[in-house]
Amino acid sequence: MTSPEPRRRPGGRTARIRQQVLDAVLAELGEHGYDGLAVETVAARAGVHRATVYRRWGDVGGLLADVLDAAGDDDWQPPDTGSLHGDLAALNQEIHDALVAEPPVVAALIAASFRSEKAELAQRRLWEGRYARCETIVSRAVQRAEVPPGTDAQRLLIAATAPVYHQLLLLRTPPDPALPDQAARTAVLAASAGAFAGA
Amino acid sequence: MTSPEPRRRPGGRTARIRQQVLDAVLAELGEHGYDGLAVETVAARAGVHRATVYRRWGDVGGLLADVLDAAGDDDWQPPDTGSLHGDLAALNQEIHDALVAEPPVVAALIAASFRSEKAELAQRRLWEGRYARCETIVSRAVQRAEVPPGTDAQRLLIAATAPVYHQLLLLRTPPDPALPDQAARTAVLAASAGAFAGA
Repeated sequence: MTSPEPRRRPGGRTARIRQQVLDAVLAELGEHGYDGLAVETVAARAGVHRATVYRRWGDVGGLLADVLDAAGDDDWQPPDTGSLHGDLAALNQEIHDALVAEPPVVAALIAASFRSEKAELAQRRLWEGRYARCETIVSRAVQRAEVPPGTDAQRLLIAATAPVYHQLLLLRTPPDPALPDQAARTAVLAASAGAFAGA
Repeated sequence: MTSPEPRRRPGGRTARIRQQVLDAVLAELGEHGYDGLAVETVAARAGVHRATVYRRWGDVGGLLADVLDAAGDDDWQPPDTGSLHGDLAALNQEIHDALVAEPPVVAALIAASFRSEKAELAQRRLWEGRYARCETIVSRAVQRAEVPPGTDAQRLLIAATAPVYHQLLLLRTPPDPALPDQAARTAVLAASAGAFAGA
C-alpha cells in the first residue's frame, strides 16, 4: 500500500529528470538511509546538475516529499477478493511486505518523516490518499451485509492495519507470517459485532 | 505507559549524577528534539563534566538508551478498574496523554529510536516490559469470564493499543478524545468473539 516503486511515465525532459532524481533518492535511501542522503550524491547518481536539484527540490526534505507525492500519484487500487476478511488480509499482506522489504525503503521513508516536516506532510498525504481509496473495501462489505450499515470505514481500516505497522515498525517484533491475516480477522470480528457503527 | 518522568531515587553520588544527567537529557530533548541533543549541552545542563558523560554513556544514543531503561525500571502497574474495557480504556488514555504531551518527550524518544540502534533496543525493552506487565489485565478478564480461556494476551493488548499509536504517531491525525475508549471497546468486542483465542 505504501510501496514507492520506480515507474516510467510519459512526459518530456522535465518529467524524465524528475524520474531520474526520484529513482536516485530511493536508491540512496535504500543503501544509506536518511543520514546518508544528500542533494549532491542524489544529483550525481541521477546524472543531473546539483543546481537543478537545489532549484527544484530545495533540500533532502523536499526530495523525500516528492518521492512520497509521486508514490501516491499512481493507479493503486485496494484488493477486491469478494470478502471483507479477504480484502483486509490482502491489504495487510501488502503493508507487511512493504515494511519488511530489503532494502527497507518504505521503513526509511516513514523514519524520515520524523525528521523533516516536508516529508511528514507528504507521508500524511500519502496515507490519507491510501486510506481514502480503501474505503471501498468497507462499502462493499456493507453492501454484502458483512458489517452493519453506518460502519465507519476509517476506524475499521485503521483497526485492521494498525497492528501490522505497530509490530513491524514500532515494536520491531520479528516478522510474523500470521500477522496480516490475524489482524484482518480481528477487525472483521469487531466490525461484525458493531464496533465501528455508531459512536 | 511510556512516560519517563524525572524521578528521585535513593543512592549515592553515582546515582545522583545519573539522575541529573537523565533529567538534563529529557529537558534538552523536550526543548530541542533529537537533532539538538548533544553530550556537551547535556553535561553543561546537568552540571557534570563532559568527560564523565562520555565515559559513562558514550554518546547521545547511550544517553537515550539509559533514559529509556530508567523509565522501564519503575513500579508502574497497569490500570485495574474491574473490567477489561475499563482497564484497556485507561491504558489507552495513558498512552494518548503521553503521546500528545508538551513538550513531546515520548514522541521524541520514539522518533530517536529510528536514529540510534542503542535507543531502538532500549525502546523495545521498555515496550516489552510494559506489555508483559499488562498481561495481568487479560488474565483478570479470563478469570472474570469476559473473554475465552486461552486468549492471547499480547495480541489482545497490541490490538487495543496499536490504533492509538498509529493515529497519533504515524498518521498524526488531530488528537481525538474518543480514540482511547473506542480502540479499547473494539478490542473487547473482538476478544469476546474469540479473535485472540486459538490460531
